[in-house]
Amino acid sequence: MTLTRTATEARLPVLEVFGPTIQGEGMMIGQKTMFVRTAGCDYRCAWCDSKFTWDGSERHLVRHLTPAEVLAEVCALGQDRFQHVTVSGGNPALIGEPMAEFIRLCHERELRVGLETQGSRWQDWFTEIDDLSISPKGPSSGMETDWDVLDDLVARLTSHGVHFSLKVVVFNAADLAFARAVFARYPHAEKYLQPGNEDVAAAGDISRRLLDKLAWLFEQVIADKAFNDVRVLPQLHALVWGNKRRK
Amino acid sequence: MTLTRTATEARLPVLEVFGPTIQGEGMMIGQKTMFVRTAGCDYRCAWCDSKFTWDGSERHLVRHLTPAEVLAEVCALGQDRFQHVTVSGGNPALIGEPMAEFIRLCHERELRVGLETQGSRWQDWFTEIDDLSISPKGPSSGMETDWDVLDDLVARLTSHGVHFSLKVVVFNAADLAFARAVFARYPHAEKYLQPGNEDVAAAGDISRRLLDKLAWLFEQVIADKAFNDVRVLPQLHALVWGNKRRK
Repeated sequence: MTLTRTATEARLPVLEVFGPTIQGEGMMIGQKTMFVRTAGCDYRCAWCDSKFTWDGSERHLVRHLTPAEVLAEVCALGQDRFQHVTVSGGNPALIGEPMAEFIRLCHERELRVGLETQGSRWQDWFTEIDDLSISPKGPSSGMETDWDVLDDLVARLTSHGVHFSLKVVVFNAADLAFARAVFARYPHAEKYLQPGNEDVAAAGDISRRLLDKLAWLFEQVIADKAFNDVRVLPQLHALVWGNKRRK
Repeated sequence: MTLTRTATEARLPVLEVFGPTIQGEGMMIGQKTMFVRTAGCDYRCAWCDSKFTWDGSERHLVRHLTPAEVLAEVCALGQDRFQHVTVSGGNPALIGEPMAEFIRLCHERELRVGLETQGSRWQDWFTEIDDLSISPKGPSSGMETDWDVLDDLVARLTSHGVHFSLKVVVFNAADLAFARAVFARYPHAEKYLQPGNEDVAAAGDISRRLLDKLAWLFEQVIADKAFNDVRVLPQLHALVWGNKRRK
């Protein structure tokens, strides 16, 4: 029993590996990258665009792979057409040592590693991530931020000189107020705002609606001195490819 | 005569000051910023989206302002709703000491300064720019790059530790080949590709056409190992606001 558990914990719960594609959002927007999506999340955001990572609907597709197996799959798919890997979830910060090992292996191959998490939990390997996006969730998500955890996390990232940013997804005025609070609390962080995708299940071209939402967010930011040092960015993949999976 | 010339040269030829708005492209994409657009260019790009800066059509609108006057206008318009200024053209690198002075004044006010130029000419004040976008023009522009000048410019920026990037606008396969040559020549630079805007005079919503062009460029980049460390970004302002001026 103990042996089985140990073996399981030395692996990453991987839901999908895909790419090369273009990073659609946040601090590495536009960067050509491979994606590794891990399963499992401590949040249940109302508007999550990857509910299949935590709602049980794709539990049968989760594979428990060693770090070397994950990297082998990334390399087999990406061949010589990538040098950046993005780890997404779910919340990849639920994973401990196997993720640290995966990052080490990526760096041995001279791959740059980006990762996004909501900031609900610290992992020591955060200090090894090249581009770390911390994305606290506003009121529209239905989640509550544990400010003590986030304070500690941001303080540690800062003291270690990690290249990180704070990104808030905005659906409404309450989310904007939340973003103001986050950015005022951590004034020296890189700051990003992103318009929310209202309907993550719609098929086909959703670009005009997303661009209207972006225009609205531009106007909010332009008018408000609290957002002077903020960058506002859309989800490029959703503009170009709609809600298509593995893009 | 000499005195008049000196007086003229202590001023910047300014075509427009506008903002706050959102930086639509390149290394500072999404950043809230004020814009200062200078008149005059040593290039005549076939697809230039700001021909009015050099084709004589708005010569009567050019104002020769002192650096302090330009900053006063920026501050009057932006009030407390900005802390970033973007200098655009035309080619602002045609301007010498008055630009250096303008940058100094911005920094005194704790404003961050971004600037874009094609890299056809060096200015000592390049080393003072916080975010410098060098955008050599590909074959579709009808312009020729002076590689000796660009080599020297990139070497100086590198030795001074300036935060700069190389950005190539892509209309076709010949431009992609040009981008490959530029990026291979300066492997350590931050690299950006941007899809060209085929019709800079069209009125109304041009977003679908621009997104199709972006999708095409994504596919080119994904398929080509020469672009592994490149970021591909659209012009957000054109997606959101079309070809509208002063946005």
